[in-house]
Amino acid sequence: MNEEKLLSILERVAAGRVKPATAVRQLKHLPFEDVGFARVDHHRALRSGAPEVIYCPGKTVKQVVGIAAKLVKAGSDVLATRAGEAVFKALKRRWRRAKFYEAAQIAAILQPKRPKPVGNLLVVCAGTSDIPVAEEARVTAEVLGNRVATVYDAGVAGIHRLLANAREIQEANVIVVVAGMEGALASVVGGIAGCPVIAVPTSVGYGASFGGVAPLLTMLNSCAPAVSVVNIDNGFGAGYIASVINHLAAGKAR
Amino acid sequence: MNEEKLLSILERVAAGRVKPATAVRQLKHLPFEDVGFARVDHHRALRSGAPEVIYCPGKTVKQVVGIAAKLVKAGSDVLATRAGEAVFKALKRRWRRAKFYEAAQIAAILQPKRPKPVGNLLVVCAGTSDIPVAEEARVTAEVLGNRVATVYDAGVAGIHRLLANAREIQEANVIVVVAGMEGALASVVGGIAGCPVIAVPTSVGYGASFGGVAPLLTMLNSCAPAVSVVNIDNGFGAGYIASVINHLAAGKAR
Amino acid sequence: MNEEKLLSILERVAAGRVKPATAVRQLKHLPFEDVGFARVDHHRALRSGAPEVIYCPGKTVKQVVGIAAKLVKAGSDVLATRAGEAVFKALKRRWRRAKFYEAAQIAAILQPKRPKPVGNLLVVCAGTSDIPVAEEARVTAEVLGNRVATVYDAGVAGIHRLLANAREIQEANVIVVVAGMEGALASVVGGIAGCPVIAVPTSVGYGASFGGVAPLLTMLNSCAPAVSVVNIDNGFGAGYIASVINHLAAGKAR
Amino acid sequence: MNEEKLLSILERVAAGRVKPATAVRQLKHLPFEDVGFARVDHHRALRSGAPEVIYCPGKTVKQVVGIAAKLVKAGSDVLATRAGEAVFKALKRRWRRAKFYEAAQIAAILQPKRPKPVGNLLVVCAGTSDIPVAEEARVTAEVLGNRVATVYDAGVAGIHRLLANAREIQEANVIVVVAGMEGALASVVGGIAGCPVIAVPTSVGYGASFGGVAPLLTMLNSCAPAVSVVNIDNGFGAGYIASVINHLAAGKAR
Amino acid sequence: MNEEKLLSILERVAAGRVKPATAVRQLKHLPFEDVGFARVDHHRALRSGAPEVIYCPGKTVKQVVGIAAKLVKAGSDVLATRAGEAVFKALKRRWRRAKFYEAAQIAAILQPKRPKPVGNLLVVCAGTSDIPVAEEARVTAEVLGNRVATVYDAGVAGIHRLLANAREIQEANVIVVVAGMEGALASVVGGIAGCPVIAVPTSVGYGASFGGVAPLLTMLNSCAPAVSVVNIDNGFGAGYIASVINHLAAGKAR
Amino acid sequence: MNEEKLLSILERVAAGRVKPATAVRQLKHLPFEDVGFARVDHHRALRSGAPEVIYCPGKTVKQVVGIAAKLVKAGSDVLATRAGEAVFKALKRRWRRAKFYEAAQIAAILQPKRPKPVGNLLVVCAGTSDIPVAEEARVTAEVLGNRVATVYDAGVAGIHRLLANAREIQEANVIVVVAGMEGALASVVGGIAGCPVIAVPTSVGYGASFGGVAPLLTMLNSCAPAVSVVNIDNGFGAGYIASVINHLAAGKAR
Amino acid sequence: MNEEKLLSILERVAAGRVKPATAVRQLKHLPFEDVGFARVDHHRALRSGAPEVIYCPGKTVKQVVGIAAKLVKAGSDVLATRAGEAVFKALKRRWRRAKFYEAAQIAAILQPKRPKPVGNLLVVCAGTSDIPVAEEARVTAEVLGNRVATVYDAGVAGIHRLLANAREIQEANVIVVVAGMEGALASVVGGIAGCPVIAVPTSVGYGASFGGVAPLLTMLNSCAPAVSVVNIDNGFGAGYIASVINHLAAGKAR
Amino acid sequence: MNEEKLLSILERVAAGRVKPATAVRQLKHLPFEDVGFARVDHHRALRSGAPEVIYCPGKTVKQVVGIAAKLVKAGSDVLATRAGEAVFKALKRRWRRAKFYEAAQIAAILQPKRPKPVGNLLVVCAGTSDIPVAEEARVTAEVLGNRVATVYDAGVAGIHRLLANAREIQEANVIVVVAGMEGALASVVGGIAGCPVIAVPTSVGYGASFGGVAPLLTMLNSCAPAVSVVNIDNGFGAGYIASVINHLAAGKAR
Repeated sequence: MNEEKLLSILERVAAGRVKPATAVRQLKHLPFEDVGFARVDHHRALRSGAPEVIYCPGKTVKQVVGIAAKLVKAGSDVLATRAGEAVFKALKRRWRRAKFYEAAQIAAILQPKRPKPVGNLLVVCAGTSDIPVAEEARVTAEVLGNRVATVYDAGVAGIHRLLANAREIQEANVIVVVAGMEGALASVVGGIAGCPVIAVPTSVGYGASFGGVAPLLTMLNSCAPAVSVVNIDNGFGAGYIASVINHLAAGKAR
Repeated sequence: MNEEKLLSILERVAAGRVKPATAVRQLKHLPFEDVGFARVDHHRALRSGAPEVIYCPGKTVKQVVGIAAKLVKAGSDVLATRAGEAVFKALKRRWRRAKFYEAAQIAAILQPKRPKPVGNLLVVCAGTSDIPVAEEARVTAEVLGNRVATVYDAGVAGIHRLLANAREIQEANVIVVVAGMEGALASVVGGIAGCPVIAVPTSVGYGASFGGVAPLLTMLNSCAPAVSVVNIDNGFGAGYIASVINHLAAGKAR
Repeated sequence: MNEEKLLSILERVAAGRVKPATAVRQLKHLPFEDVGFARVDHHRALRSGAPEVIYCPGKTVKQVVGIAAKLVKAGSDVLATRAGEAVFKALKRRWRRAKFYEAAQIAAILQPKRPKPVGNLLVVCAGTSDIPVAEEARVTAEVLGNRVATVYDAGVAGIHRLLANAREIQEANVIVVVAGMEGALASVVGGIAGCPVIAVPTSVGYGASFGGVAPLLTMLNSCAPAVSVVNIDNGFGAGYIASVINHLAAGKAR
Repeated sequence: MNEEKLLSILERVAAGRVKPATAVRQLKHLPFEDVGFARVDHHRALRSGAPEVIYCPGKTVKQVVGIAAKLVKAGSDVLATRAGEAVFKALKRRWRRAKFYEAAQIAAILQPKRPKPVGNLLVVCAGTSDIPVAEEARVTAEVLGNRVATVYDAGVAGIHRLLANAREIQEANVIVVVAGMEGALASVVGGIAGCPVIAVPTSVGYGASFGGVAPLLTMLNSCAPAVSVVNIDNGFGAGYIASVINHLAAGKAR
Repeated sequence: MNEEKLLSILERVAAGRVKPATAVRQLKHLPFEDVGFARVDHHRALRSGAPEVIYCPGKTVKQVVGIAAKLVKAGSDVLATRAGEAVFKALKRRWRRAKFYEAAQIAAILQPKRPKPVGNLLVVCAGTSDIPVAEEARVTAEVLGNRVATVYDAGVAGIHRLLANAREIQEANVIVVVAGMEGALASVVGGIAGCPVIAVPTSVGYGASFGGVAPLLTMLNSCAPAVSVVNIDNGFGAGYIASVINHLAAGKAR
Repeated sequence: MNEEKLLSILERVAAGRVKPATAVRQLKHLPFEDVGFARVDHHRALRSGAPEVIYCPGKTVKQVVGIAAKLVKAGSDVLATRAGEAVFKALKRRWRRAKFYEAAQIAAILQPKRPKPVGNLLVVCAGTSDIPVAEEARVTAEVLGNRVATVYDAGVAGIHRLLANAREIQEANVIVVVAGMEGALASVVGGIAGCPVIAVPTSVGYGASFGGVAPLLTMLNSCAPAVSVVNIDNGFGAGYIASVINHLAAGKAR
Repeated sequence: MNEEKLLSILERVAAGRVKPATAVRQLKHLPFEDVGFARVDHHRALRSGAPEVIYCPGKTVKQVVGIAAKLVKAGSDVLATRAGEAVFKALKRRWRRAKFYEAAQIAAILQPKRPKPVGNLLVVCAGTSDIPVAEEARVTAEVLGNRVATVYDAGVAGIHRLLANAREIQEANVIVVVAGMEGALASVVGGIAGCPVIAVPTSVGYGASFGGVAPLLTMLNSCAPAVSVVNIDNGFGAGYIASVINHLAAGKAR
Repeated sequence: MNEEKLLSILERVAAGRVKPATAVRQLKHLPFEDVGFARVDHHRALRSGAPEVIYCPGKTVKQVVGIAAKLVKAGSDVLATRAGEAVFKALKRRWRRAKFYEAAQIAAILQPKRPKPVGNLLVVCAGTSDIPVAEEARVTAEVLGNRVATVYDAGVAGIHRLLANAREIQEANVIVVVAGMEGALASVVGGIAGCPVIAVPTSVGYGASFGGVAPLLTMLNSCAPAVSVVNIDNGFGAGYIASVINHLAAGKAR
């Protein structure tokens, strides 16, 4: 029940029109979220600097625009992930401030005033084909208010390119590592870094990569101790988690 | 919060010592289950004719006895599934009324007065090696107050044995079908029956049965329309679900 | 053999034109279904309130219309599942009463007089992408004569939305739970409900959902005791099973 | 070496122009098939009533025609399996006697005089969607000179349709059973039949059929003792094997 | 119903004490197998030269002896497959004629008079570790009355050993090929042979053989056209099928 | 090269005995770690508050003691994970301060002075069988200097137990969620929490849990946005990662 | 650091302007690759006879041309693998010397002067459908300066075709074996050859070949001792490895 | 046929006692290997410096000794892989020169005079648990006459240990890389090395390593171009292949 209803019951108790024992029975049979769980919603409201996300595959352009309209109306920033150009154009037509991050395939409708980016979040990726997923992580993290650096095309078969960036790796608060094929990059970065590493396997590869199963298993079995893993191609999720950690490290609740 | 606490808040509101608006704030920050979710617990209490179940694998005999002691003390009937003789003997030593269903590997501590079994629940199994799982379903269902019939050793490769029991199959309220190897029995029974069929794949078999994967897939793909499936070797679950359905059919809430 | 043939043999026995021993031999060598199994067919005839179902994928529009024509001629209601608009239009051209449930992708040709819906069947689904499968279950159940309620978009990551519907969940005779991605919804609903839960994993998701394997395994391993599972995306099957259970609970043979 | 060459060496030995010891050395270093393995080729020639087979997927129409031309020139009958209409039309343009078995998707260029079909080969299939694979088996077997009967649409969920054909099943020399979804048909037929059953899983199904893995496992785990299995959708292979067995049974080397 | 009962009904019809129409109703509700399916049983009786088989794993020695006792009493020959020495000794104690085929791990209780072996059945195996499965096939086939030859230890990596036996391969009626590891032997034998090849993958191997999955897939994908496959390690099944085919080829119903 | 060697080269340069150009060549061919990578080692030394870890399975007691001896000598704290009692007793005999966390199966040799625990790290687990893995995470985190709270036995099928701890969940810096069977707990906790959730699937379960694959997939597909996953049963890894994040949040480099 | 920077530091040491101890500190904190790892790059430069490779799938024509332009400018030969005709035409328009190996789907931009091919490298493939992968290996090896022979269409089911080439097999320095379906060819060739065999499974096949998993497992389990395996369809990789081995055998560093 | 027999036929031809045409027929029907394939055997004899290998798992001690006896008698060196101490002791009792490589679990019976080791073969392994497999490769290679160096315990999570050995890696003729868990080591070594890398995944690990599947997939998908893969735990195979390559590089036929 919303606050009004709860208040009205309590006022009737205060006014002596309802007995406490009766009120107990009434309160016990109300839907749960009405009394207690509003707090969760409230909590969500407090967090609302974070944009709402629309995962586009399997939705028509019209559906995406419809959902976006509701979210914008509610005052929320909006990210549409894995959006194509058609989705972007439709959003642009309606909201002039809509923006398209092409490499990340993210369309965004954001408040013009962005908070100042904080912390030190690094996105590393293995091959050029992994860049779209890496960009999904980077754009997500930037929109969420993080200062993001990137080291792209740093596969383990050319380890020196990676080592050239050892300092950035050692100084980050949190690192997103994106890799397909054999996915070994997460272990190597995790061995150099001292911070949490969020590993994202990608479906880049062929044959025995089985659509990303190979790097997924590699990353789950990583011998580097601070590596945790998200779903195949889930750049958004990695960027989100890294943002939460980076904000914790920066001493700011996100 | 327990009822007392809620009552005390309301009484203070009634007495004018706490303002309604203040009480709203207090109520909103109480743990959820205290206010609203007690109903669920209460509901569970209402259902308490059902015995509590202890899944024995991975627990020591001592642990099983300990859990059983708490449940018995709380007035509950107790089923210990996949219990060995050692578990049974330990239970027997403590509770003389403990009983062992050897084929089902279930040890039970039950109230002497059992409700009269209701309805018409049938357990069918394919080969003699599937009998332990079938018995787990049967004993579970009987303890839960169902009238249970069985048709064992009725594999599809000897279809006439199955057809000889077509009447039982067509007159049941619900049927548990237990089969390993290729698991085709569920489809054949499902084709004859008009009632819900709960299919239990077993790990009986070798080679390409892959520990029960073969019959599991068979049953999930059944072309008979009223077949649903539980986990490999999960005789208890099947017996439980069948009991719920049989009680619904018998017009009695279980 | 049909009844006429059996009767004619027996009449010849009665007339003394055929000896009993000879008749025994004749009867023993007749095709099985002629003597005994006609009963099954008869039984099927008795159940014939249920519509016949055409699964459209892999069939041409022409084939679907052809099969539908035979079924309509035989007096049966017809459901065409996973039908596209092309199938529907072709059916509509021939049978003006044909109807299209777009979200469910079901085309139906039904008798105008429907039985009054009975019981209390609930369909719950996790995300908006799961709605087509949920609708397939809902429409199936409604056509089969059930009173159906729905709770959509109630994923476990926003548990309060689900809890807000706890009463509906606790009062249903049977619940169909439809969920992709991690499929955890079935366990949560199963933990609140007291009735049978038919879980439908969907192929909604990407990467390590492996086309629905992830929620399938989740549901098979559910720790809630009354959950049974059907094939991935099998909304029809779930709706059918739930209908059978709901009719049992409503005290009416379906 | 071909016979001529071997003969010439031996004649030179006979003529005293080459010493036996020298000839031994020559013979030992000749390619293997030239001396000994010609027998295999000869053997193949003896069997050459059998048509050569072109598996069309992944080949252009032009390539199929090219291969067919070589085979026809060599005097062989030709079967093109999984051929589309485009392939057939191209063959027809060149060879007027080319024939298309549409349901089987087989295009054939055969000698007008066919041997009289022998034996008693039965093809059984479960659902209408399995018919293309069943037809591939049937056409293959007929072209190979077998008398073939068929029982189609005899799924195990309607067991009486299958039992109505029990006599045909019991009198066959060999049976091809084609089934997708759960594939249980092979076990049921295998339980009734006394002859070898060649089981063909099909990719018909969805979700947990995993493209034919479900019926494949079902058939490999069959509890009926005379069931052996070929690859998913391999109607040609099943028809070929059944033909070999049927010819053996008919007392004729194929 | 047994014949007596059917006869009694018909006699009452003949005597005018039961009307034909009444008898129709009685007959229609009798269990199926009583009237019609006895034929199947009779048919089974006719085939009873074949021994009954007890698959020992998962059965106690006592259970095996118990089942054997029933079968012996019914006049049947008995094979106990995957029997250990303990099982054999227990059988020997009771039936002095019990015999143990150690390499095959088969214990047998056979009638002293065996039919003269017929035909030409060949068992080929790849490595020495595959011999137990090959022996299971060989002993099964011999007990079933086949003349059996063997070519053991003929792996494809030493192709000349196999080719040395090309004549035996080309003259067999049917061949059982047993191979673990990569299972390539079935294809090579199938390429040389003209007869049906029953391929048995074994669980011999390690690592990526995955308990026999590797040779299973190899054999299912065989490019040799007359290869069909049975379950991993299923020597009995292969021997049984080969026996049926060999008897067909020898012009004798088994 | 160690510092001495580098210094000696430079001193020779300073002394004019080696030319700069020559020194460049020498330096370029030295092993990498000698010149540059010492920094990494140094960095590791700085982090050395963290104990070294010995993973015991597959190591003899003697080997574990040997490795521990080297680490203790180097001044490091030592954790031996998945240690049995035998390992512990051997360690205890040598180091009296060795301690055994039995539920976690961790043996530890720690400096008596522990840093004051910081932050707010929560470990949640689903069933009692998951407790060993949860304890491995908890003990690891405590030894690494974190303040750890636990919520055990909070499966999703009894959602109210979980909700009763919503406040702890919402106030944690980081949460480790440990669950076997269907692993749905991570999603539910992730939906309530605002902080990073490290999910640990366990091998607890049977049948279609496939040794932990089911909860692994569930967690990878979680619809809650801040969930990342580690290997099956990897309580240590989860505790380690959570510690790194908790220290970041507490504003202290670990 | 590049050589200049290192030299300048050392010169300052030589000039007495920087103390050796200070220089040590400076050197220790330089990025790793600058000092030591340049050697790797240099080493790569030395090897630069090898063309650089662009894997085309997932890249636009424009991207491929862009990458090629950079490589050509750097003086490198360029191979574009799995290129279509569109890619080739675009390359041809820009570089007239661009060449298209159609069967291999490789476009190449090579220096007109090629080194004289060395050694003795053999490519064997099983079926005509495997030829594209085999050609990818052949063209790769030829471009890398190897003398390459081929034996195509030599499947194990027609073993005599393979044996006819036994001499070539026995005289090669290294053999690439390309096979789909059951992949048995690698074992047979490996049994005849004395040299290393690089096995390439292909995705040619259907059903239980699972996109190349069947031949992959076959090859990994090969009983022939000198067989190693690369990824499914990885003709380029096999050609590259074979080239390295062949050059080693020819006494020339590649 | 052996040479004598062939010679005798030819002499009879030379003597005019057998006509050339008759001899052709006789030769054509001789077993293949007798005429032509002896060459293969001869070839094998020429290679006989290589020891014969007995894979011990699944063989009794007695069987191993029996096979060894035959091989020793034939003058061959013998390696027994995965031998336990019991096997070794039994061999030692019979052949005093038998030797046990404990870490490799290889028992060997070798000629006292070993050829001088050649070339430059490197074995690298990731963790201490991988050492048994690495040692199997090393001992195999040494027995086969190679000069072998080792770099053990060089996991990618501590990349500097690996880089410290970059020179050895760059100077080897061939490298065996042994790694379990995530298996990333092969890619890193392959990126540094210029020579062929034989990758051996091991079953070391737990959970999602799935008995070595994780490193197997990692290695098959390696982005380093000269990596080929052998079966899980197949140290012997890797050592053998590396030996063949190393001998080719050293300009000596093995």
